[in-house]
Amino acid sequence: MDHRILDMISSPADLKLLSNDELSILAREIREEIVTVTSETGGHVASSLGAVEIILSVHSMIDCPTDRFVFDVGHQAYAHKLVTGRLDEFKTLRTYGGLSGFPKSDESPCDVHPSGHASDSLSVALGLAKARDLSGGTNKVVALIGDAALSGGMAFEALNHIGQAQTPMVIILNDNEMSISRNVGALMKHLGNMRASTQYRQTRDSVQEKLESSGALGTALANFGRNMKESMKQFVLPRTMIFEQLGILCTAPIDGHDIGALKETLGLVLAADAPVLMHVVTKKGAGYEPAVRNPEKFHGIAPYDIATGEVRKKPAAAPSYTSVFGKALAEEARADDRIVAITAAMKDGTGLADFAEEFPNRFVDAGIAEEHAVGLASGLAVGGKKPVVAIYSTFLQRAIDQLIINNALPNLDVVFAIDRAGVVGEDGPTHHGIFDLAYTRMVPNMRVLAPSNEAELVHALHTALALGGPFAIRYPRGAAEGVPLPEKPEVLEVGRARTVREGDDVAILAFGRMVSRALGAAELLAERGIEARVVDMRWAKPLDADAVARAARTRLVVTVEGGVVSGGAGEGVLGELARQGLAVPALTLGVPDVFVPQGKADLLLRDLGLDPQGIAASVEARLGK
Amino acid sequence: MDHRILDMISSPADLKLLSNDELSILAREIREEIVTVTSETGGHVASSLGAVEIILSVHSMIDCPTDRFVFDVGHQAYAHKLVTGRLDEFKTLRTYGGLSGFPKSDESPCDVHPSGHASDSLSVALGLAKARDLSGGTNKVVALIGDAALSGGMAFEALNHIGQAQTPMVIILNDNEMSISRNVGALMKHLGNMRASTQYRQTRDSVQEKLESSGALGTALANFGRNMKESMKQFVLPRTMIFEQLGILCTAPIDGHDIGALKETLGLVLAADAPVLMHVVTKKGAGYEPAVRNPEKFHGIAPYDIATGEVRKKPAAAPSYTSVFGKALAEEARADDRIVAITAAMKDGTGLADFAEEFPNRFVDAGIAEEHAVGLASGLAVGGKKPVVAIYSTFLQRAIDQLIINNALPNLDVVFAIDRAGVVGEDGPTHHGIFDLAYTRMVPNMRVLAPSNEAELVHALHTALALGGPFAIRYPRGAAEGVPLPEKPEVLEVGRARTVREGDDVAILAFGRMVSRALGAAELLAERGIEARVVDMRWAKPLDADAVARAARTRLVVTVEGGVVSGGAGEGVLGELARQGLAVPALTLGVPDVFVPQGKADLLLRDLGLDPQGIAASVEARLGK
Repeated sequence: MDHRILDMISSPADLKLLSNDELSILAREIREEIVTVTSETGGHVASSLGAVEIILSVHSMIDCPTDRFVFDVGHQAYAHKLVTGRLDEFKTLRTYGGLSGFPKSDESPCDVHPSGHASDSLSVALGLAKARDLSGGTNKVVALIGDAALSGGMAFEALNHIGQAQTPMVIILNDNEMSISRNVGALMKHLGNMRASTQYRQTRDSVQEKLESSGALGTALANFGRNMKESMKQFVLPRTMIFEQLGILCTAPIDGHDIGALKETLGLVLAADAPVLMHVVTKKGAGYEPAVRNPEKFHGIAPYDIATGEVRKKPAAAPSYTSVFGKALAEEARADDRIVAITAAMKDGTGLADFAEEFPNRFVDAGIAEEHAVGLASGLAVGGKKPVVAIYSTFLQRAIDQLIINNALPNLDVVFAIDRAGVVGEDGPTHHGIFDLAYTRMVPNMRVLAPSNEAELVHALHTALALGGPFAIRYPRGAAEGVPLPEKPEVLEVGRARTVREGDDVAILAFGRMVSRALGAAELLAERGIEARVVDMRWAKPLDADAVARAARTRLVVTVEGGVVSGGAGEGVLGELARQGLAVPALTLGVPDVFVPQGKADLLLRDLGLDPQGIAASVEARLGK
Repeated sequence: MDHRILDMISSPADLKLLSNDELSILAREIREEIVTVTSETGGHVASSLGAVEIILSVHSMIDCPTDRFVFDVGHQAYAHKLVTGRLDEFKTLRTYGGLSGFPKSDESPCDVHPSGHASDSLSVALGLAKARDLSGGTNKVVALIGDAALSGGMAFEALNHIGQAQTPMVIILNDNEMSISRNVGALMKHLGNMRASTQYRQTRDSVQEKLESSGALGTALANFGRNMKESMKQFVLPRTMIFEQLGILCTAPIDGHDIGALKETLGLVLAADAPVLMHVVTKKGAGYEPAVRNPEKFHGIAPYDIATGEVRKKPAAAPSYTSVFGKALAEEARADDRIVAITAAMKDGTGLADFAEEFPNRFVDAGIAEEHAVGLASGLAVGGKKPVVAIYSTFLQRAIDQLIINNALPNLDVVFAIDRAGVVGEDGPTHHGIFDLAYTRMVPNMRVLAPSNEAELVHALHTALALGGPFAIRYPRGAAEGVPLPEKPEVLEVGRARTVREGDDVAILAFGRMVSRALGAAELLAERGIEARVVDMRWAKPLDADAVARAARTRLVVTVEGGVVSGGAGEGVLGELARQGLAVPALTLGVPDVFVPQGKADLLLRDLGLDPQGIAASVEARLGK
């Protein structure tokens, strides 16, 4: 490791000086760096390892930041970070104050756009191409998108527009035969068929041969301009490809780990004066055996042992909310065969793997397609089923309209199990679930539960399924509170809070995970002679009007929630106070009007003043007024 | 008209007794009824006229409500209403308390689902099919979707899943070569090519011939079960159709006004044990010459003269907000060539027709694809342009995630021109724009302007473009207030309200259109000895902290907004009061926690207590406490 090429790369321009062999050596070094660092920090290992050669090839052929390289989702971009001047900081990946796990526009001019949510890269890329055209520019625009992200409707909307707009841009389809969870959808099958066909192999061989036999061919073709499209025909598959029908020229699949092939093909497609989709086949986890063997595990992984690939986990103090939800749902499903579980490509992430195994027919993976997942739930509910849609808080933002129009308006029996609610952690601003209380509260007919521990989650799920109607249940990522699970779940009284600590000086009305923090704050306050009542509000909607009225009889009504204050549950409490004609001092604590950075959730909550110390300090400061 | 067949149709079952000739006569009667009624009520005339034969044929072949007939968008469903027991009420179409202009599940068991937003029918239909399969049922599921709605990503997400799921359902593609505004996207071109091809014509002729030559063929084929797919091959186009590649069998295009052909083909596809897309070609406005000549005008039209097709408009008291916006944007664009206007298939509806003519290169119609439209804006902004995204409030609900992640997080210069904000009118609950204040307020970096009249709108737009960053400007449908437009637009001070009436008893903090209502209320209150200050808040975010503090020195702080109270701007004011430690009586007026029905906006606002009388009464009642 004394003389790494990697250490000499200070910008993408340096890559242009390297031979293909040297780039291959660099790819190996980058893989070692990624594995070394992520074994400590955790991260999106499998996809980042798979995309190394693609990224090196692209940066060898374009000039960032003048040229634009847009990443979809962005969890495959580690190699991009390493060759765009961020090698030294790479060891801080995904840590508090460190390098983001995703492209981030304020981190480097080479990061075009904050990635994090799937399927948006093609829209952004077309916008960049259109901006270039309007300015009379000639810069290149390249988007890198995985096969799984193509199932998101936004990507199709963009493809449809790109095929019409016909402005030059390169779409690299990183076809690794993997969505995050598993292959979903007919498009995947279509891609699979393409790869399996003899035609594909023959075409690839012939492309290979032609490219190899004629070094000047690339240049010659590049000068063809409009005619390019005709010339390319030799290289492309028959026009049965779905993309071609949308007016997007499509290359035959290319080996995504062959730098020579990648660069030669890139030379051709970058010179085209129309949109071209470059179909690249890669192996997730390439170069690191444990990740190749188990790419799902290595999609997003906690710190692990390099030799074995085993996660270096401390024994968890308590089961995760996610796993409690999965088990509770399976238990409910055993008693009620109308229950159907829906995920959007996050079977494992939402704790539904066991459910899927036990009830394969009653489990639906809709793919990265949250809008469809919620619409599908609507159809199932109209058809007499009880769909439970388990989607992360941040990704359900994709389907708020469907939640409103398809589920809440007709008042259907749909349960939204909103996982990863509140501050989530190392994945940063695109992944925090800080808006869900606001975006569910605003919707008529919705009832919103924020369980404060795993037992409450079990009751909440049971309540939603028992009562019917559109329900949102939001709960955080990670270990739950460690309380015993109930023998038998109960139907919670609608809009009824529970007081978990008595006190008459101030009343802290807390939602979800913040209840335990509020209890901690109450103890700190007690040490200073302030007796705080703590109420587990349970329901963000409808609120417990009596609990609010009672709170108003203390010196200060404090609300604490894990999401944004603007439009959040605390403002709901203020509204309830106003409705009751109660003019009392109030303090709404939660996420202020900023995007929350990355880091361990506890650190972030501390910074936000949402740990016991912070809550107590805010209360004291206000009482001092 | 003495002996109309239509008058004898009390349920879809009656259609089964009619011959094809009688159904054709019925179709004519239905068209007369639609034109007669909509000439008084206004409505979605062109698409409803185009779909009459499709609807009659489907209802002749299936049994609603056991079988499920799902409408996409639903504005083509008038014939469906007329044959499912709603003939007598049809004259109340789209009026206050009357029949909805869209399918509505509480209106008839034959209305599966509340339609209104495009591209959701296929998800709902798949959910219904899946529910059927789980219950071991055999009922049919038919979805009717227009070509324009296919450009919405949600429809593609569903097609992708349907192709994989392979459960029987019929998708009728109503290909009328029209999106609401104009054909957009490569898919449209693809469909167009299909229709133009000789192959299409030949195939159609041959289908026609075969169907005609053999009455028993349908039955024979229907019994084929799985083999059906092979048999159908004779009738389908080569496998170049995009749908076929997604695993969905696809018929050759059928004349959508030929009841015989429709019924015979339906017989085949309804018997298939796999999903089939039935490609039907219709003419928008069919049967009514003015609508055929100008289908865009007759997409959604106000009351009109039957003979001429001219809209019977009263001369407007003032220009519409929409047209003021369109003119103001064009004016801004003349001075700044970075401005780009984006619409999602609503060029006319958002007032951008003139802009598009003057600046064709700087106008983008993204199609019915709000997610993509907002992502595209992001790319344009990164590329140095100033995109202005003009989308109706209710449809921007489709792109809240993109607004958050793609625009607000990177703090880009994007202006959201949110038309049709607040209570909209006759289109009812799916079209009211009552959530936008809540869903924009919750987003960090967003600044939100709610202009109170057309002059304020001009200033607001200028302000957003001058200051940069993500901005939302929300304004209502219809005639503005009739105030003179400014000679020169001003840059408004951020977070600064303007007091429009002085008074010290109560302070009414009003947003947008509610300012004029609040002024009316203040006059009524003055008659009763209560002096109300009225503040045009201008900014829903950031709020004017001084105006709020000053309001707190009256007896009652009243907020009035045109959207939902839960999470709305009024709760923001309560939050600001709390932040300032001001414990004062407050009253938040706005849309309560219910979906708002249809009707003229003024009637609805009256019912919601948001007219001057209602506001004054609420204030008086509260002061009486």
